[in-house]
Amino acid sequence: MTTTLLLPESVKIVEVGPRDGLQNEQAVSTEAKVALINQLSSCGLTHIEAGSFVSPKWVPQMADSLEVMSKITRAPNVTYTALTPNIRGFEQALDANADEVAVFTSSSEGFCQKNINCSIEESLERFLPVVAQAKDKGIPARGYLSCIVDCPYDGPTEPSQVAKVAQALLDLGCYEVSLGDTIGTGTPVRVANMLNAVFERVPSQQVAVHFHDTWGQALANIYQALQMGVRVVDSSVAGLGGCPYAAGASGNVATEDVVYLCQGLGIETGVDLNRLAQAGWEISDALGRQPTSKVSLALRS
Amino acid sequence: MTTTLLLPESVKIVEVGPRDGLQNEQAVSTEAKVALINQLSSCGLTHIEAGSFVSPKWVPQMADSLEVMSKITRAPNVTYTALTPNIRGFEQALDANADEVAVFTSSSEGFCQKNINCSIEESLERFLPVVAQAKDKGIPARGYLSCIVDCPYDGPTEPSQVAKVAQALLDLGCYEVSLGDTIGTGTPVRVANMLNAVFERVPSQQVAVHFHDTWGQALANIYQALQMGVRVVDSSVAGLGGCPYAAGASGNVATEDVVYLCQGLGIETGVDLNRLAQAGWEISDALGRQPTSKVSLALRS
Repeated sequence: MTTTLLLPESVKIVEVGPRDGLQNEQAVSTEAKVALINQLSSCGLTHIEAGSFVSPKWVPQMADSLEVMSKITRAPNVTYTALTPNIRGFEQALDANADEVAVFTSSSEGFCQKNINCSIEESLERFLPVVAQAKDKGIPARGYLSCIVDCPYDGPTEPSQVAKVAQALLDLGCYEVSLGDTIGTGTPVRVANMLNAVFERVPSQQVAVHFHDTWGQALANIYQALQMGVRVVDSSVAGLGGCPYAAGASGNVATEDVVYLCQGLGIETGVDLNRLAQAGWEISDALGRQPTSKVSLALRS
Repeated sequence: MTTTLLLPESVKIVEVGPRDGLQNEQAVSTEAKVALINQLSSCGLTHIEAGSFVSPKWVPQMADSLEVMSKITRAPNVTYTALTPNIRGFEQALDANADEVAVFTSSSEGFCQKNINCSIEESLERFLPVVAQAKDKGIPARGYLSCIVDCPYDGPTEPSQVAKVAQALLDLGCYEVSLGDTIGTGTPVRVANMLNAVFERVPSQQVAVHFHDTWGQALANIYQALQMGVRVVDSSVAGLGGCPYAAGASGNVATEDVVYLCQGLGIETGVDLNRLAQAGWEISDALGRQPTSKVSLALRS
């Protein structure tokens, strides 16, 4: 007897290590970033967040994104994405030849104010011309939505509120919205309730999940989301990024662990796990620490 | 809209840190073990594996189990269990006033030979008088079954083989069988297939799960098992135990992480998470390292 679960045949992994990961680590050299991105594309990853065009005053780790994106070896069929918080960032992303741009807001007002210094409504207004110009240029725009379970300032987030802002990002012109459990407190039933609310307003094909493993729940939550029709998972090689809200704790779920989960579930990711783990060790060596990926540690042992 | 999942109202956690955990760590003092067990019982844990009566030649870390079990403060309603591989061990467990005894075999022949130096059949014969005498004395006996997904020597384990040996342990007189993913390679669909096979021969009420987090999959697997009717979960405070098959990697899933998962799922464990985490930090300090529990690290931050 075999259990038949509603699982997809394949999953798209969006590798966020070089941007979302490295912007929360100590600075590494441009060369190390270029090497990392090239290794990631050669592992079979098809979507790589490669840089950010936010003011270097706020995110100095990403000040060299233009140089990084000009130096990488572009692999065919790989989408290199840049974070573009405003029109100035969008123009820089064009100079950097980004294949895709991404905008970033929150489902909680408190986090939005502290993180990007405006209301959710104002953030959407700010993104409107970015997404419109991207559409003009034929560049897909992705929307990130943070605090989809809990907010470090406002407490629990209402699932209906996540649904509302997710829909607003799609209405703006984003082709996909990535739902982020920013502080990693989510557990599967809360995630299921949130996703059910979102799916009332947004098709599951346009939803990605972005879990942090700060409380160890990321894979259980991803497993829940996969069973509910989610087909896109964000993750960070070697767990790059740590947790900006809990010193010494984990942040982004490690791509190695997600790939291993998918392999075990019979879900194709297209990723070569051993090469991926090697890429994770090399960037971790540059940072002077071990990967937070349990799969990486087990593979090495 | 709220997702209704088939989840239990409560789960029994079997805390294995003081035995299965500490026997795979460097030796700590008798006093540190006694303090740990007393802290664990005061957290609300009702089942604590407190010692092992295996030859100290093989497991020197457990040589003081009689002294440990005589020095702990026995809390009412707490079951203190001892591992008893043979009649000699069983008699020592009686001297130590163990409330419950446990026997240990494997669902793979290769692991059984390497670990306890006999065939599975021979191990069951060896346990027969132990479980019979326990029954005579009114002491419950628990059966551990290792390598329920993969064996480090024999490769994948057939689900039907797990079912067969699980049933044999119950037939012997064990009241419960704990199914152990010894090398932590399991993922939820393989776990589901294994459990389905077991449930054809054994009632789910008599099944516990014992996951190692070496490949980061333990909570996803526990979540799967909970949805299939399993109501008993083994875990180890602070993730004590490491992984004897992968240096530097995780072994037993951390009790803190299991309790947090259950809390998030609305499942009662009776455990005070903050006190539990404190107990985990104290024994980790004695070992000179951090807990492997992500929840512990997040709570401290």
